[in-house]
Parts: sequence; C-alpha cells; structure tokens
Amino acid sequence: MLVTDLETPVPVIDLDRVEQNIARMQAYADDHGLALRPHIKTHKLPRFAKAQMAAGATGITCQKLGEAEVMADAGLADILISFPLIGAAKAARLAALAARAKMRVAVDNPLALDTAAEAAQRAGRPIGVLVEFDSGMKRTGVTSIEDALALLRKVRDTPSLRFDGLMTYPSNAATAEFLRAIAPLIAAEGMAAAVVSGGGTPGFAHAHEITGVTELRVGTYIYNDRMMLEAGAASLNDCALEVHATVVSRPSPDRAILDCGSKTLAMDLLPRGGVAAGYGMLLDYPDAVIERLSEEHGMVDLSRSDRAPALGERVRVLPNHVCVVTNLHNDVVLARAGVVDSILPVAARGLTR
Amino acid sequence: MLVTDLETPVPVIDLDRVEQNIARMQAYADDHGLALRPHIKTHKLPRFAKAQMAAGATGITCQKLGEAEVMADAGLADILISFPLIGAAKAARLAALAARAKMRVAVDNPLALDTAAEAAQRAGRPIGVLVEFDSGMKRTGVTSIEDALALLRKVRDTPSLRFDGLMTYPSNAATAEFLRAIAPLIAAEGMAAAVVSGGGTPGFAHAHEITGVTELRVGTYIYNDRMMLEAGAASLNDCALEVHATVVSRPSPDRAILDCGSKTLAMDLLPRGGVAAGYGMLLDYPDAVIERLSEEHGMVDLSRSDRAPALGERVRVLPNHVCVVTNLHNDVVLARAGVVDSILPVAARGLTR
Repeated sequence: MLVTDLETPVPVIDLDRVEQNIARMQAYADDHGLALRPHIKTHKLPRFAKAQMAAGATGITCQKLGEAEVMADAGLADILISFPLIGAAKAARLAALAARAKMRVAVDNPLALDTAAEAAQRAGRPIGVLVEFDSGMKRTGVTSIEDALALLRKVRDTPSLRFDGLMTYPSNAATAEFLRAIAPLIAAEGMAAAVVSGGGTPGFAHAHEITGVTELRVGTYIYNDRMMLEAGAASLNDCALEVHATVVSRPSPDRAILDCGSKTLAMDLLPRGGVAAGYGMLLDYPDAVIERLSEEHGMVDLSRSDRAPALGERVRVLPNHVCVVTNLHNDVVLARAGVVDSILPVAARGLTR
Repeated sequence: MLVTDLETPVPVIDLDRVEQNIARMQAYADDHGLALRPHIKTHKLPRFAKAQMAAGATGITCQKLGEAEVMADAGLADILISFPLIGAAKAARLAALAARAKMRVAVDNPLALDTAAEAAQRAGRPIGVLVEFDSGMKRTGVTSIEDALALLRKVRDTPSLRFDGLMTYPSNAATAEFLRAIAPLIAAEGMAAAVVSGGGTPGFAHAHEITGVTELRVGTYIYNDRMMLEAGAASLNDCALEVHATVVSRPSPDRAILDCGSKTLAMDLLPRGGVAAGYGMLLDYPDAVIERLSEEHGMVDLSRSDRAPALGERVRVLPNHVCVVTNLHNDVVLARAGVVDSILPVAARGLTR
C-alpha cells in the first residue's frame, strides 16, 4: 500500500530518515566520547528504542513510570526516569521495574529521594540516583550548589541508593559553570559523579563542548520537527514524521480547511514566530499559514501563497513539535520510499503516570 | 477507593455534576422547544451519550467517522457527523454506519456531497444532509446564500440524499440574519429546512433567541471548564472534571512543579487572558498561575499567591479546555462524593479519522 492511499489525517514516518537520524546521533556521541541515552518520549515505540540500543545507545530515558513499564515489557533493560517520583504507589512500581531492569532515577528533592530509597529497599537491589540541577530552564532541578550537596550526602547516607551523578536539561554554559563549581566539593565529600547527564536536541551539536558532561539525553532527533529546523538542529531532509491531511473545505479563495486540528497537530507554537508562524508547515505550500486549529479543523490562510491546494487535495504537514503529535495518535504508519511498511500502535502514548 | 488514593496525574469526573449538567441542558432545550443533539467530542464515552439520550436528546453529534463508529457499536442510533467527509474510503465507512444507524451529515462543498451520495447509494438507504453555512467562525461552511442554494439544489437533485436542513456554528446574530435571507429562497425552490442546527455551549442560553434555529448542538456543557467560566456559561459548581496532580518539586519559594504537563492539560489558552491566565486553574490556590507546560511538567508561579502548596501535596486543576483533555487520556475516573465509581476507557479518544 502506498502512503497516499491511507485515510487522512495520518502521521507517516519515513524509516530511511529515522535510521539516518539514529546513526548520525550515535556517531556524534561516539565521536565525542559521550554516552547516548535517547529519550523515548518522542517515538514511544519499543521498536525504535531497540533500534537506538542496537546502534550503540547506553540505555534509554523515560519521563514517567508508565513509559518505563512499556519499555521494560519489551525487553529494554537500562532505563533512566528523568522525572521526580513521589509517593508509595510510585515506589512500588519503581521497585517492580528495578527487579527486571537496571533503573536509575533523577531526584531534586528529599521526597523523591525517599521514594527511590523505598523502591530500592522493596526491590532488594540498589537504584542509581542522579541529582538534578537547574541550568536555567526554571523547571525541576535544585537551584543551588548547597541544595545539590545536601541531596548528594543524603544519597550517600541511604544504603539502598547508589549515587551515580548529576543531571540537567538542557546542557549549556550554565551547566558547565555549575559543574565547575560543584566538582571539587563532590570530591571533598569523597564521592564522584560517574555520570553527568545533559540533554536537548536543539543544542545537541554543542553537547561535547560542555566540560564535565558525560551523557547525552536527546529525543526529538529521531523524527525532528519544525522547532528543530528553527533551532538549526535539523534540515527538512532530516524530518521523518509528516502528517498527511486532506483539504475538506475551500470556503473562500484565501482559505482552506484541513481535516487535522489540535487533536492531530497539537497546539504547540514555535518559540519564535508564535501564532504568526502557524501550527505546522504545509510542505508543498510553504507560504500558506495554518493560522488556527479547532479540535478537528486546521484553518489555512492562503492570502500570502501564490498557489493554493484544491478541494479534496492531500497535503503534507510538518508538525511544530513532534513529541506531542505522536502522543495524540493511537497508531503511526512506518513507510519507506512512500510504501507502507507497517502500522504500529504507539505503545507508550498517554502514559502520564 | 477514594479519589485522593488515585495515582496522579488523573482526570476525575464528578457524576453528580455530570447528571445535573445533562438534566439542566435538556430542560433548557425542552423549555424552548429546541431539539438537543449533544456533541460527544467532550466526553467520548458511550455511557454518557446514552445518558444524554435517556434524558431526552434527539440524537448525538460526532465530528469524525471513528467517533460515530464507536457510538454506533454501543447502540447509539441517530448520529449527525458535523464535519465534511471526502473520498471513497469515507463513503464506504459512512455507508456501513448508515446500514445500522440513522445517519445525517453536514456538507459545505460538492465533494462532501458526492461522498454522502456514494455512501447512501452503497447503503441502499437515504442519508440526511445539512448544508453548513458560516456564521462568522471562518471555519467550514459556505459563505454566501448563493453557494448554499447551489448545494441545496444539488442535494434535491441527488436521489440517494435527503435534504434535512441547515447547520452552523456557533448560533449568533449572523445566524439569524442568514436564515432570514435564505428562508424565502428555500421555499421558492419548493423545499423546506426541517432542521436548522446551531451550536455552542458558550452562548447556549441565547440559542432560543436565534429565530429559525430548531436544534442545539452542545458538547462542553457536560463537564464545563475554565473557558465556560470565562464565557459565563458555567459556574465553578458546574465544572465536573478536575485533574488531580501532585507537587513533585519546589525548587524555589515562588515556584512549584506539578506532574501534569501538556500531555495531561493540553496547551489550549483562554481566549482572553492568554498565557497570563495560565494553562489551568489551581482550584485551591486561585492566585497561583500555571505559567508554562512541558510535556510532563506544569510550572506554577506562586509569586502572587499568599499560600503555596507543599512538596508532595495533591492539588486539583480545572482545565482550560476540557474536550482536549479527555482526548489525551486513555481512561477517566468517574466518582461520586469523592469515592471512585468506575474507571472507564475513553472509547472514542484519538479517533481523528
């Protein structure tokens, strides 16, 4: 079956580009002596997690326990959960995972540390801990050297835990500065950060310049998207996922309506450009702007486009943010040279717990 | 089990409020002689579609064929698809639906009309058609009386189709104006619009003031959300779906991180307020602002809040736009007075085709 025979809207993934993206990132990591620990949040597919491991990845990254459970079920055996887990229910699930995979977790607070300790105790085997620090994202992560050291010491003093190192997102100049300041203090405690995990596809090509970082956590690179184009981290030929859609209405000369709305493309905007840049790029009509989305409708402004798609025409949309697109779909289509290879359930989609 | 024992993040639906919302909207429609045809896009649950029918709804509305198939499988027997369907694959599916349910479709262009005609022919039974016109939304819908009349005539001249009337979204002053202008012209064709379907929860209370409208399509009213609060269409006590979340990090005094991000709350903003109003309302901390979302993180600015949730605390979030929230989740929890009644798969989630 050709991808052009598929009913729309449908996310179509080019396997050649996926393989090229996996190989290129692994080569970058290998060239610079970085461990690569891909984030599965972008693809959410055991098949691609295994392909990343086969290419040389050191393990995978998951954001939530549910994702890790799907990956462990599929045989992935070395998993970092890069999100603070808190509470007895999470500890029980983490313990069950630790019984069948090498687990590591990021913590930035004492309750997350206690949860990891409880899990390790239940599992009867140590769980690795990375202390997360904030390098400017203002998200999770301790914001001071003192808080990081306090957590490090608490990890060291908890028999069921193993101090593995540090983590941040993204890797940047502030990362290097934090590492420079904390390194002698960690040494003074008689400890060592074997792993310093940094991340982010947008700036991945500079990861090796951040002194002290040993591991690269990247997810988006496997598909890429419009945000990665804007960040200069990918070219159009590196973009592996397109949404195929149909023009279902042409109410006026300067407006086309697509059958893909926020349930298909998500509402994420480009950091620069915002609404003016639209909710995705029409690959064959680059001057058309997807200016609004309803849940099922994509409203396209054609007023600045010389050409216009006809009623009933199929069009290809490059999403702004591909990770949230795969999360919306129950299935994705894998294709090679326009021929359908397989249709896969997005096994780890929607697993927010 | 109490809802407070559920792992977070989790969408929790108050059954008492749902029942009250269903009853109240039906009473409004009955009081004003309007047919009520609820849009299932908000709940995506056969259980609630049946409850809406049991309360007196005339049928249901679906946006896509996949939603209609789930509802027909569950026994719903009168379905409007309010979205243009184009192409042979859609015709085949519509035909299969027409063989087991009373189907009606909205069309705003000749290809959608042809698709409906092909489906009706295959099914061997007529399919009802509503001609969609634009009342200012600039989405689908013909934009002129002439285009509407051309489609009406084409429906009349297609033996397999039955002209049922007109449709628009939302119902407003422009709706009344369009209807006033077209009514004598439809009569002059020897035809009659038995159904004039209008819609929208935000302005539902004025639906009966729009002369000519016979049917009310509303979806959001069953749960309500922050957008409905802002529109004056609901009070806090009418909001039936809350997302329960946990504070998983408190990196600084004025910041809390929740375990619900864009994969849980979606990125929809309030029409007024925008980012400043945040990505949801913390019901117990109304002065806190959910100022940013990553996929799994909700970043809360506490700088204008007298009180602050503690690390590990459970909080309740009222979503901005509830229809897209239910679409993100594989399951929802139904509860009564804080006790879990059941956990239901969101049967029609993610069905964009």
